[in-house]
Amino acid sequence: MADIIAIEFSNEVLRLIDQRVLPGKLEYFECRNYRDVEFAIKDMVVRGAPAIGATAGYGAYLAAKELMQKHPSDRKTFLVEMDAALNFLNNSRPTAVNLMWAIAKMRHALEDHKDDAADLLLERLRALADTILNEDIETNHRMAEHGNTVIPKGATILTHCNTGALATAGYGTALGVIREAHNTGKNIFVYADETRPRNQGSRLTSWELMQEGIPSKLIVDSTAATLIRDGKIDVILVGADRVAGNGDAANKIGTFMLSVVAKVYGVPFYVVAPTTTIDFDIKSGKEIVIEERSAEEVTHIEGVAIAPEGMDVYNPAFDVTPHENITGIVTEKGILKAPYTEAIRKLAEER
Amino acid sequence: MADIIAIEFSNEVLRLIDQRVLPGKLEYFECRNYRDVEFAIKDMVVRGAPAIGATAGYGAYLAAKELMQKHPSDRKTFLVEMDAALNFLNNSRPTAVNLMWAIAKMRHALEDHKDDAADLLLERLRALADTILNEDIETNHRMAEHGNTVIPKGATILTHCNTGALATAGYGTALGVIREAHNTGKNIFVYADETRPRNQGSRLTSWELMQEGIPSKLIVDSTAATLIRDGKIDVILVGADRVAGNGDAANKIGTFMLSVVAKVYGVPFYVVAPTTTIDFDIKSGKEIVIEERSAEEVTHIEGVAIAPEGMDVYNPAFDVTPHENITGIVTEKGILKAPYTEAIRKLAEER
Repeated sequence: MADIIAIEFSNEVLRLIDQRVLPGKLEYFECRNYRDVEFAIKDMVVRGAPAIGATAGYGAYLAAKELMQKHPSDRKTFLVEMDAALNFLNNSRPTAVNLMWAIAKMRHALEDHKDDAADLLLERLRALADTILNEDIETNHRMAEHGNTVIPKGATILTHCNTGALATAGYGTALGVIREAHNTGKNIFVYADETRPRNQGSRLTSWELMQEGIPSKLIVDSTAATLIRDGKIDVILVGADRVAGNGDAANKIGTFMLSVVAKVYGVPFYVVAPTTTIDFDIKSGKEIVIEERSAEEVTHIEGVAIAPEGMDVYNPAFDVTPHENITGIVTEKGILKAPYTEAIRKLAEER
Repeated sequence: MADIIAIEFSNEVLRLIDQRVLPGKLEYFECRNYRDVEFAIKDMVVRGAPAIGATAGYGAYLAAKELMQKHPSDRKTFLVEMDAALNFLNNSRPTAVNLMWAIAKMRHALEDHKDDAADLLLERLRALADTILNEDIETNHRMAEHGNTVIPKGATILTHCNTGALATAGYGTALGVIREAHNTGKNIFVYADETRPRNQGSRLTSWELMQEGIPSKLIVDSTAATLIRDGKIDVILVGADRVAGNGDAANKIGTFMLSVVAKVYGVPFYVVAPTTTIDFDIKSGKEIVIEERSAEEVTHIEGVAIAPEGMDVYNPAFDVTPHENITGIVTEKGILKAPYTEAIRKLAEER
C-alpha cells in the first residue's frame, strides 16, 4: 500500500490527516499559522508524541514567518513575540516530551541565527522543521529493525493505543516494529486494545492494520489480561510519551495495567520510543506531569451521552509504567536494558 | 429516594426497566409471553446474574400459562412443550448460573405438581417466581450487612460493571454493600469503572450512584490500575455471574485485570454474590462457559461506528478471577474465606 502521510508541509501549509474523524472519514486539516497548529495539537487533530514534535516544528516556523512579516524592521520585538509564540505552542499539551524537545530545538536555532537576514533565518527554521520530520521517519525505521529482533516467528503481539504512521512522522514506533515484523514475513498476529477513552486503537490502529493487511483483532482494553494469562500473547509492544532517566515511561492510560499483568505472567513488555522521547532532565516517572482531559471524553461518544448528566469523571490521559515492569526500551540506537539509569546516562553522554 | 424497581410482575405482565436505553431514557419493556422474556435476557434489556434469574422465573410461569391454554386437556403434550420452553429460556445466555438455577427450580416445581389441576399448578409456579424475586431482595440486604463489616469509615471503594438494583431483584450485590455503607453514614467515595464494551458502569452504576447521592467518579477501566497503585483505593467490590466450587469467579470482563493489580498492590478484593450464584457442580473456573458477544458491541456505540468496517473483534463478555486473587466472597450466609473449596463444600452440605 501507499505510505500513510499524516504530516506534510508544502506551499507554506501544514497538512495533517484529521485523526478526530478517522476511520469514518479521511479528511485533512490545514494549518496556515501557528495558532492553527496549537489548536491541532490541543484538540488532537494530530496526536502521538513524535507526531506532535514534528508538527510543533512547523508551528514554530509558521510563527516566525508571521511575526517577521509583522515586524520586518524590529528584530527585538520579533524575538519577544516569538518567545511568546513558542511558549504558546509548548503549552498545547503537557505530557509528550517530544513537543518540548522540538520547540527547544527551534528556539536554539532562532537564538543561534537571530542576527541573520530575515530570509536566511526563516529558511534555516524551515529546514530544521523538515529535518525534525525526516529524522523521525529515519529513526522509526531504525527502531523497527532493532525491535524486530525480539519478535519470534509466528508471534502474537499485543499493542495499546496508536503508535503507527499516524502517531509519528511515518512508519511508527511500536506499530513500526509490527510493520517490520509483518514485512519481513514473520507471520504475526496482532491484538489491538481499543484504548479508551478516545479509542485510538479502534479508530486508528485498526485502520492502519487493515491498510497493511496485518492479521489482527480488536479487543476492549481489559480483555488483554485474560489473553496474557492464557498464554495467548508472546510479546507486548507500546509507545511512550515521555521516558524518565530511570526508564519509567509515561504512555497512554492503560499501559501500566498491561505492564502489571505482563510481569505477573512473564510476558515480555517492550516500550518502543526514539531517544527524543527520553527526558534526560528528570530522574523518575514521579516528575512527569500527567494531563487530565475533559469529562466529556468519557461521558460522550460521537456527541452521544453514555453517562447521566452531571456525573463526575476522573480522566487522566496517561499513566506511568515503572521501569521494573519494562523488559526493554527499543530506541533507534538499540534496545536499552536494565539498569536503565546507567543505559540512559550513557545515551545522554553520547549526545 | 424511591427504590428502583427494575423487575415487576403485575396484571400478568412482566415489566422491566429497559437497561439498553438508560441513562438517557427511563423506559419499560413489557414481556407478555416467554419469548419476550427470552429476548429481554438475550438482548440485555435486563442483565446482571440475579436479575436474570428472577426474570427467568416469570418467563417459566408465562410459558406454563400459554401452553396450558394451548393444551388444556393434554397434560402430556403440555409437559413436552414446557420442557422445550424451559430449555429455550435456559439457553438465552450461557454464563450466569442464576439463570440455570431459577429454571431448574421452576422445572422441579413443575415436576412435583405435574398432576395438579391447571389452576393450582399455575398458581404454584407464579408463587415460586414471586418467591425467587422476593428472596433475592432479602438476600441482598443480608449480603449488604455482611459486606458492610469490611468497609472502613471514609473508605474509597472501586467497583466494576453494574451490580445494583438494576442487576438484581433490588438493592444489589456489590452495589448493595456500597448502598449499605453509604446509608450507615460511613462517608464513602466510589470510583465506578465504565465497563467496556457495554458501559454498564457509565450507564447504569453512575445512574444508581447519582440517584442515591453517593459521592463518586466515573473512570475508564484501565485508570483503575493507577488508582490502586497510588493507594487511592481501600477496597474493591465486584459481583459475580458464576462462582465455581473452588471459589474461582466469573464476572464481567475486566474483573480479572482488577484482581491481578489488587493482589500485586495488596488491596482487598471482595466478590459479592448470593449462594444462588455458586455452581456447586463445577470444580473450578476452567469449566465455566464464557459467552462471546457480537463484534458490534466493540465497533459501534449507539449505532455509530468507531472502528473501520470489517475489523475483526474478540469480545468475551466475562472473565474468570482465580480464587487466590479473592480476599473474600460475601454471601447472604456470611463472608467465605480461603480455603474456598472447604467453605463452599460446607455450604453445599447445608443446602
